[in-house]
Amino acid sequence: MQKSDILKNLQEIAGNERVSASSAELYCYSCDASQVRGMPDFIVRPVSTEQVSKIVRLANEEEIPVTSRGAGTGMAGGAVPLEGGIVLDMSSMNRILEMDLGNLQVTIEPGIIQEKLNEALEPYGFFFPPDPGSSAMCTLGGLIANNGSGMRSVKYGTTKTYVLGLEVVMADGTVVNTGSKVTKSVAGYSLNDLFIGSEGTLGVITKATLKVRALPKERSVLLASFDDPEHAGQAVVKVLSSGLIPSACEILDRNIIEAINTYDPNIGLPKAGAILMFEVDGTENSVREGIEMIRGICSSLATSIRAASDKKERDEIWAARRLVGAAVSRLDPLRTRVYLGEDIGVPIKELPGMLHKIREISEEFDLPIMTYGHIGDGNLHTGMCIDMLDDKQWDKLSKVADKIHRTAIGIGGTVTAEHGVGSARAEYLELELGNALDVMILIKKALDPKGILNPGKMGV
Amino acid sequence: MQKSDILKNLQEIAGNERVSASSAELYCYSCDASQVRGMPDFIVRPVSTEQVSKIVRLANEEEIPVTSRGAGTGMAGGAVPLEGGIVLDMSSMNRILEMDLGNLQVTIEPGIIQEKLNEALEPYGFFFPPDPGSSAMCTLGGLIANNGSGMRSVKYGTTKTYVLGLEVVMADGTVVNTGSKVTKSVAGYSLNDLFIGSEGTLGVITKATLKVRALPKERSVLLASFDDPEHAGQAVVKVLSSGLIPSACEILDRNIIEAINTYDPNIGLPKAGAILMFEVDGTENSVREGIEMIRGICSSLATSIRAASDKKERDEIWAARRLVGAAVSRLDPLRTRVYLGEDIGVPIKELPGMLHKIREISEEFDLPIMTYGHIGDGNLHTGMCIDMLDDKQWDKLSKVADKIHRTAIGIGGTVTAEHGVGSARAEYLELELGNALDVMILIKKALDPKGILNPGKMGV
Repeated sequence: MQKSDILKNLQEIAGNERVSASSAELYCYSCDASQVRGMPDFIVRPVSTEQVSKIVRLANEEEIPVTSRGAGTGMAGGAVPLEGGIVLDMSSMNRILEMDLGNLQVTIEPGIIQEKLNEALEPYGFFFPPDPGSSAMCTLGGLIANNGSGMRSVKYGTTKTYVLGLEVVMADGTVVNTGSKVTKSVAGYSLNDLFIGSEGTLGVITKATLKVRALPKERSVLLASFDDPEHAGQAVVKVLSSGLIPSACEILDRNIIEAINTYDPNIGLPKAGAILMFEVDGTENSVREGIEMIRGICSSLATSIRAASDKKERDEIWAARRLVGAAVSRLDPLRTRVYLGEDIGVPIKELPGMLHKIREISEEFDLPIMTYGHIGDGNLHTGMCIDMLDDKQWDKLSKVADKIHRTAIGIGGTVTAEHGVGSARAEYLELELGNALDVMILIKKALDPKGILNPGKMGV
Repeated sequence: MQKSDILKNLQEIAGNERVSASSAELYCYSCDASQVRGMPDFIVRPVSTEQVSKIVRLANEEEIPVTSRGAGTGMAGGAVPLEGGIVLDMSSMNRILEMDLGNLQVTIEPGIIQEKLNEALEPYGFFFPPDPGSSAMCTLGGLIANNGSGMRSVKYGTTKTYVLGLEVVMADGTVVNTGSKVTKSVAGYSLNDLFIGSEGTLGVITKATLKVRALPKERSVLLASFDDPEHAGQAVVKVLSSGLIPSACEILDRNIIEAINTYDPNIGLPKAGAILMFEVDGTENSVREGIEMIRGICSSLATSIRAASDKKERDEIWAARRLVGAAVSRLDPLRTRVYLGEDIGVPIKELPGMLHKIREISEEFDLPIMTYGHIGDGNLHTGMCIDMLDDKQWDKLSKVADKIHRTAIGIGGTVTAEHGVGSARAEYLELELGNALDVMILIKKALDPKGILNPGKMGV
């Protein structure tokens, strides 16, 4: 079929105003928050499952790539149409279809913004826990496709913990429903979990039923400083072994502490080899008790401890964590933060060692690296900035990212704990997964024999 | 290959003493805790992944079915060799390979008994939470293959919550490692979750790395009686909406209350339309607070409430829940409990309605049904007893189970919340899953093209 005929077909399916092939618009859809680029041939903004199904069926018949896209906040190129074809912009399918709070669940379309769902739930005393840094922008469809998480997954788990059911358009256009409204079921393979985190390579998510949780009544924070990152790591293992699960457990390394203090001297973080920030949520009593437990555990390892005495102080302490992004990005106006090698995960015990190795890599390549992350999950984010017009710095950055990835894999870690594989990290999957990648490829071929769904991603 | 040659080959792989084709022994492996029967041709008790790999490779070449088996405690025929072939008795691979408590995880072989792992963890203050009724007998391999759970999944989740990594022998004998030692990773498809709950139809699990949790310091219980099961359902939704997650949340219906009181009059359960039993665990303070929260929530709905004032009373109250199995089974010495239609799950809100429908079915067929279950998960167990020598009663029981299954599916429920599909419930998967079953079949064909792995199960 000619390109013009495909365009006409897409317009017939979705309506003229929901289809575009104008180069200005195509350009807008050629990137996400990563460095990956790929130009689509068509943009379609479907409003119904039926439209998605017809579009994907057409694409399958004509062997045209289909890349679904939420808000484009991904950091690995997951939503970038590497091989052209159709970008399905799912952001118009953004309704809450059912607030079934008597069953502690909601059914949504994938285009809804994470924060909007939480705004709708809040008056009823509920929330959807996964909290990526991009909550204010990212869509739930994107979150599901990437099994996204964030700071609070140490207590609340990742997105897959909350997915009860999905409606998925398969590569041939068939609409399949996985899971159900039942909290616990072993009827059949865990197809929900197969589609979650498959980054649009196995199907297009058009609907999801999600568990919600009651909003905690109270939360508080404690900040502990350590000379030696090793001691910070020990403190985290001790806290998690105590039975208390904090709602966040963050680490800041020496460089990011300096960066935050430089960016906003009012924050006044103590100079330290590492800082841990714990958040505890629950009832008023349990929060007080939890903070005291953490204080007791950290006291023999930390050089200083500061617990919030009230909400004001809590917000002040937590402000430092919120400033991380800004502190990394705006330290040097001539340099821009680039997300590369930024999302490794390692077994918790290995985290202090990994921090040490990151410092060595930083020194070896003479590139400052600021490191912070969700230590309770073993997830470290590195912040690196370069002059984006300087090819040599790009080259250096790539080498640094590559070394960080290989080092993480070498100690039993992962190249991506929460940001996704996309194409940016696809080359490492064989090294990290071994022949489990062959199993992925078998599944991909079985469900998408023509390879039209988000080709070039995840190594499949 | 002749049967005698296969036997010789198996003996060469695993050693003579670990292979059997004697009819007495084959008979022992022809059943599990369900009514399903199937005679194997060979029993092999491998001691290593290498042996399993060689056995499966041979089976694949010769197109002989391979059914892996743990302790045979399954209630749906999952471990029964329906089409003959080889039964892999995994119980000799029962070592704890690594206690990596600094990373809050252990690595085990699949044949270890659930309770043995918890005995090994207890001195260190940890436990592996999934707690099926068969904990004292079932193997972790069986638990993983069925994604088993139990009473405490309302707080702690099912087995898949705890699986970090698996070693799996695929249908062609290849050994694949899925997942890793990292708590949080999005590198690749969730292959762990695909194998978990696939009942040996996609691979043979030969090793697993499991997360463990800190043992709670304290636990206590509260019993609340309701005239109307509807009120019990409302109380559960209110408790779960309060932010408190009890460590167990059980329901007993009118018939099981009577059965328990008849079986042991000392228990003295109040006469009621339904009884809820809540368990709360955590620190001493949080347990006290949790019990008071539940008391407050239930007070306007319940006709009576009894909270344990000390450990003795706690054990007394919980004794009633532990007696359920005995009360169902031993009420009438001429009748035997048969597990059929015994594991439905429904959305929580539908649970009182489902209890009502079960009573109607019981009356329609004039067969007493005692119902209890994990109401926090929407999971109901029905207890039905028949004279096993009476064909008419068998026929009636089958019809009752069938109606229970179809009723559950009709209100958005599942035929199995935790016991598994096996062959006993395979016929309902098409009705329950719709064309998601086709997706399962595509995956099964891709990973086990000759269909040698546990054929006849799960509808694939």
